[in-house]
Amino acid sequence: MEISARNALKTTVKKVVTGSVNTEVTLELAPGVELVSIITKTSADNLGLVEGKQAYAVIKASDVIVAID
Amino acid sequence: MEISARNALKTTVKKVVTGSVNTEVTLELAPGVELVSIITKTSADNLGLVEGKQAYAVIKASDVIVAID
Amino acid sequence: MEISARNALKTTVKKVVTGSVNTEVTLELAPGVELVSIITKTSADNLGLVEGKQAYAVIKASDVIVAID
Amino acid sequence: MEISARNALKTTVKKVVTGSVNTEVTLELAPGVELVSIITKTSADNLGLVEGKQAYAVIKASDVIVAID
Amino acid sequence: MEISARNALKTTVKKVVTGSVNTEVTLELAPGVELVSIITKTSADNLGLVEGKQAYAVIKASDVIVAID
Amino acid sequence: MEISARNALKTTVKKVVTGSVNTEVTLELAPGVELVSIITKTSADNLGLVEGKQAYAVIKASDVIVAID
Repeated sequence: MEISARNALKTTVKKVVTGSVNTEVTLELAPGVELVSIITKTSADNLGLVEGKQAYAVIKASDVIVAID
Repeated sequence: MEISARNALKTTVKKVVTGSVNTEVTLELAPGVELVSIITKTSADNLGLVEGKQAYAVIKASDVIVAID
Repeated sequence: MEISARNALKTTVKKVVTGSVNTEVTLELAPGVELVSIITKTSADNLGLVEGKQAYAVIKASDVIVAID
Repeated sequence: MEISARNALKTTVKKVVTGSVNTEVTLELAPGVELVSIITKTSADNLGLVEGKQAYAVIKASDVIVAID
Repeated sequence: MEISARNALKTTVKKVVTGSVNTEVTLELAPGVELVSIITKTSADNLGLVEGKQAYAVIKASDVIVAID
Repeated sequence: MEISARNALKTTVKKVVTGSVNTEVTLELAPGVELVSIITKTSADNLGLVEGKQAYAVIKASDVIVAID
């Protein structure tokens, strides 16, 4: 499947914390650079997300806020 | 300002394309790794976003989709 | 690519309106049932979206609001 | 209330899974075609969502990703 | 229509800037307190948004970021 | 940090309900005017959100839906 979301970053799953209906997934982009994602528990189960697995962080362009110091 | 958004990635502005009410900003995370953002034209102007400027890509955890190959 | 987004609906592209940085895509789910999407113009171009093309509407579960009459 | 969200799909509630602060609601668009929504537990309670109830899935156009095979 | 979105703030339309596919709407919550919204041009037209009109800003709880000084 | 999100409303934290991975935060904009936010439990902890604390509700313009009666 090819998607319109402009941003698909290669990452490695670092941590998976399972909640009641949602799961928090920590993705490592590079050493020390992480992204946290909240997806449904069912999605996390379906994708078989476990520590060390390769995964993409997919983000729609309209969801990226820009900030400066 | 300290924010709840878990994800604030250091980037460099690579390209700014101004539309009628929105602006598309391309942010470089690392050589060859880019993120595209759509923000209002007014925000882009207020932040003074120009090529080469340091900026953060801020993303709420609930907006990060996870994908696998 | 397999994604965490729980919702991927089969549709047919019905109309594409190109803006300055964004494009509005009307997707037909069933006769008379449509979904409108705003994606970047570059994404719409990359996906080659034209009237009659098969496409999926992908929606993260946390972006679905529920309403009643 | 009339809303700007372009997408309001008629559905039937198929399943409600209550979490700690969020609730996962499965909506049936047509036989075999489902949408999953995550809303707050309080919202699900306020709307009285139970299996079989008619409901709308409301989605802002900027939250619809387009994908192709 | 009653919606799951927890946040529906009463506002007055202060400014409408029409773009190519999107429209920027400035909503006044209270004197000096404003909210900016980007919706499709078609939605803005359908709702008949003009300066001085009463309108609600509807925001899904998962789209509200919290920040502190 | 200065952000592109156009909307940063001054509020006071009124209630914090901690879930398994997410936390629901009720923010008071003015007497009787509230906004509900869902953020990760870790974010809520990091920001030290407790009843009575001053906080901002930050909302990206593309996440604001407009409605009329």
